[in-house]
Amino acid sequence: MSHTFEIEKTCRHTSARAGFITTLHGVVPTPAFMPVGSQATVKALTPDDLKDVGAKILLSNAYHLYLRPGIDVIEQMGGLHRFMGWAGPILTDSGGYQIFSLATLRRVDDEGVVFRSHIDGSEHFLTPEDAVKLQERLGSDIIMALDECPPHTAGMGQVREATDRTHRWAERCLKARRGQDQALYGIVQGGIFPELRRESAAYLTSLDFPGYAIGGLSLGEPKKVMLAMVEETVSCLPGGKPRYLMGVGSPEDLVENVARGIDLFDSALPTRTARNGALFAATGRLNIRNASYKGLDQPIDPGCDCYTCQRFSVAYLNHLFKSKELLAYRLGTIHNLRFIMRLMERMRQAIVRGSFGEFQREFLGSYRTTDEEVRLAQKQQWLARSVRVDDEGNGSEDSGVVT
Amino acid sequence: MSHTFEIEKTCRHTSARAGFITTLHGVVPTPAFMPVGSQATVKALTPDDLKDVGAKILLSNAYHLYLRPGIDVIEQMGGLHRFMGWAGPILTDSGGYQIFSLATLRRVDDEGVVFRSHIDGSEHFLTPEDAVKLQERLGSDIIMALDECPPHTAGMGQVREATDRTHRWAERCLKARRGQDQALYGIVQGGIFPELRRESAAYLTSLDFPGYAIGGLSLGEPKKVMLAMVEETVSCLPGGKPRYLMGVGSPEDLVENVARGIDLFDSALPTRTARNGALFAATGRLNIRNASYKGLDQPIDPGCDCYTCQRFSVAYLNHLFKSKELLAYRLGTIHNLRFIMRLMERMRQAIVRGSFGEFQREFLGSYRTTDEEVRLAQKQQWLARSVRVDDEGNGSEDSGVVT
Repeated sequence: MSHTFEIEKTCRHTSARAGFITTLHGVVPTPAFMPVGSQATVKALTPDDLKDVGAKILLSNAYHLYLRPGIDVIEQMGGLHRFMGWAGPILTDSGGYQIFSLATLRRVDDEGVVFRSHIDGSEHFLTPEDAVKLQERLGSDIIMALDECPPHTAGMGQVREATDRTHRWAERCLKARRGQDQALYGIVQGGIFPELRRESAAYLTSLDFPGYAIGGLSLGEPKKVMLAMVEETVSCLPGGKPRYLMGVGSPEDLVENVARGIDLFDSALPTRTARNGALFAATGRLNIRNASYKGLDQPIDPGCDCYTCQRFSVAYLNHLFKSKELLAYRLGTIHNLRFIMRLMERMRQAIVRGSFGEFQREFLGSYRTTDEEVRLAQKQQWLARSVRVDDEGNGSEDSGVVT
Repeated sequence: MSHTFEIEKTCRHTSARAGFITTLHGVVPTPAFMPVGSQATVKALTPDDLKDVGAKILLSNAYHLYLRPGIDVIEQMGGLHRFMGWAGPILTDSGGYQIFSLATLRRVDDEGVVFRSHIDGSEHFLTPEDAVKLQERLGSDIIMALDECPPHTAGMGQVREATDRTHRWAERCLKARRGQDQALYGIVQGGIFPELRRESAAYLTSLDFPGYAIGGLSLGEPKKVMLAMVEETVSCLPGGKPRYLMGVGSPEDLVENVARGIDLFDSALPTRTARNGALFAATGRLNIRNASYKGLDQPIDPGCDCYTCQRFSVAYLNHLFKSKELLAYRLGTIHNLRFIMRLMERMRQAIVRGSFGEFQREFLGSYRTTDEEVRLAQKQQWLARSVRVDDEGNGSEDSGVVT
């Protein structure tokens, strides 16, 4: 078995834990954040940039790669690792979320889902078995079961139906799996309904997956609700398996959810906000386009060891962003990802040293989080652009330049 | 005097020569090509990328930097080198070409030029003395006199008037110069009129500049005309001073003009075409978006030592360009610039070894140049987009993504 999970240390005061996920392509110290490279590229960065910021595992997406360039192309090129030039671990999402949020849905029933491509409108049929097979052909280290992901506004009846189908599909995915080189994770659904979350976690646990994801959160529901759902779910998942919270990636949410026992995260938030000029600093996000930064001769975050902070001033970045220069997007992305990677590293160290509770208090005390109303409005605005495609499956069908 | 020019070797059969331009920030082996970084950034690349492709000197632009971020900002930040993080030599153009091609011209007379910013429409007045002072404040190593650059379709009367004014301005620029750290080059004009070219070269030579540029070419005139004008001009310039042909940068034009005695070039062509997916290979330009490249498992140019060719396949680049991914622009730019830098290095070696004539024949024999009609149509199309701004002063007021 090429996938193992080992817990090194657990926090005494919270549910946080430090561990290692081992895959065929390397070891991932957890808690870990996965930069998002849906189209076989983390926007604006090379694999070397990703290594430099400290990324240990990337996320890519079977839906995007199936549509373009096609699984055949990647398979011919020796698989996804070789195609994109990244030798480390890769997790691929099945594309369930994208099919339900991005493609035009034609029909969903127990057999599978018929959808239209967001790129050219072509019609496709995907079964849970297909989703597994596509990901096996990509050669990713961790693959995800096909799930049905209803919107966060869905009522309990709709969510129950989707969750039950997700469970039946999860079982079929397990049966469809070939080979031992890839670990198939199940995805807990259940919307914002505590009893459905518990049921879903318990049911998937009974199927004995090597890891469990929590899907269907961070879709626009209040933060309190998200945290409560994570708690409900985690309480019904086995302690010895990795827990992956999908789509979460703001600094404050990472800290809060590590405290609740999450080991793995992905989100396009750090890279997307970077391209938009919102850069992380110890005290909160700053808008690099702000006129007051025009002549500021210091790095974005004096405590940051990233290439951008080591080499360039806020004044220069302000100029690049205002001039919409391509270099802005790369330098901003490097900084934001490095900030997140350092945050994960610091949390891990704190867990190992037994000081995570302290770290959590200090970080959340000094990092000014974005106001929740603003945050939800931004999220809604982003989700509303569903005809456009971005690394998260939300966004623009362009080069990822946010304007 | 911090600027010197030394000729190491001259070709016996052509006018090509190998030399060194020494500046306060380093030595430039010539013939040399300057990547274009009008807005204090070569689009999509960091200074380290530029070092890696072998760039020894960059070009930037006083017009662009004056408008944004403003000369004050750059001066406060310790000058252009420190602002953009490039420690090597920098040549700045005065912005004459941009004012006459890009800004809305309000009035030009002997005193100077009144123009409106292409960014916000604000009105500005610039004299030859101002142009020198702005560039001295930027701290660039080589600065350019303010010139008047008429379109290539202008009649002889208009060109004579512009050329005469350029001469009067050149004298005033020389007088306005302070300090010895920067070399001021004069710019020969004269359009497509051999006698005006000779007159202009002779007149500027009488003023004894440390270097001479040839302006007003590569603006859409036939290639034969351009080469004839270069020959006329070079024949009237002193042998011991550097000769800089402005705006030239296709592989074939570089070879032809090195053969005619040019030492220095700049052009946005290699970087602009790269962003458009036209990548240089030994046999000519290839369009990386071509469907036949979808599954091609080899580098763009098997003989190329650039980062892109060392790490990525044509198939992956085809995917990035088709998906309009930001990484495409960086990888394409690295390749095209490295191709040009290697071409310059190979020409220099050939001159030093006494085999330039052979090199020229071989290169032009195997490199399939773009059909002249196609080339001129592309150039016209590009120049016509004069409301948009790019690194050459032609192009889009966006991030430089060509679509």
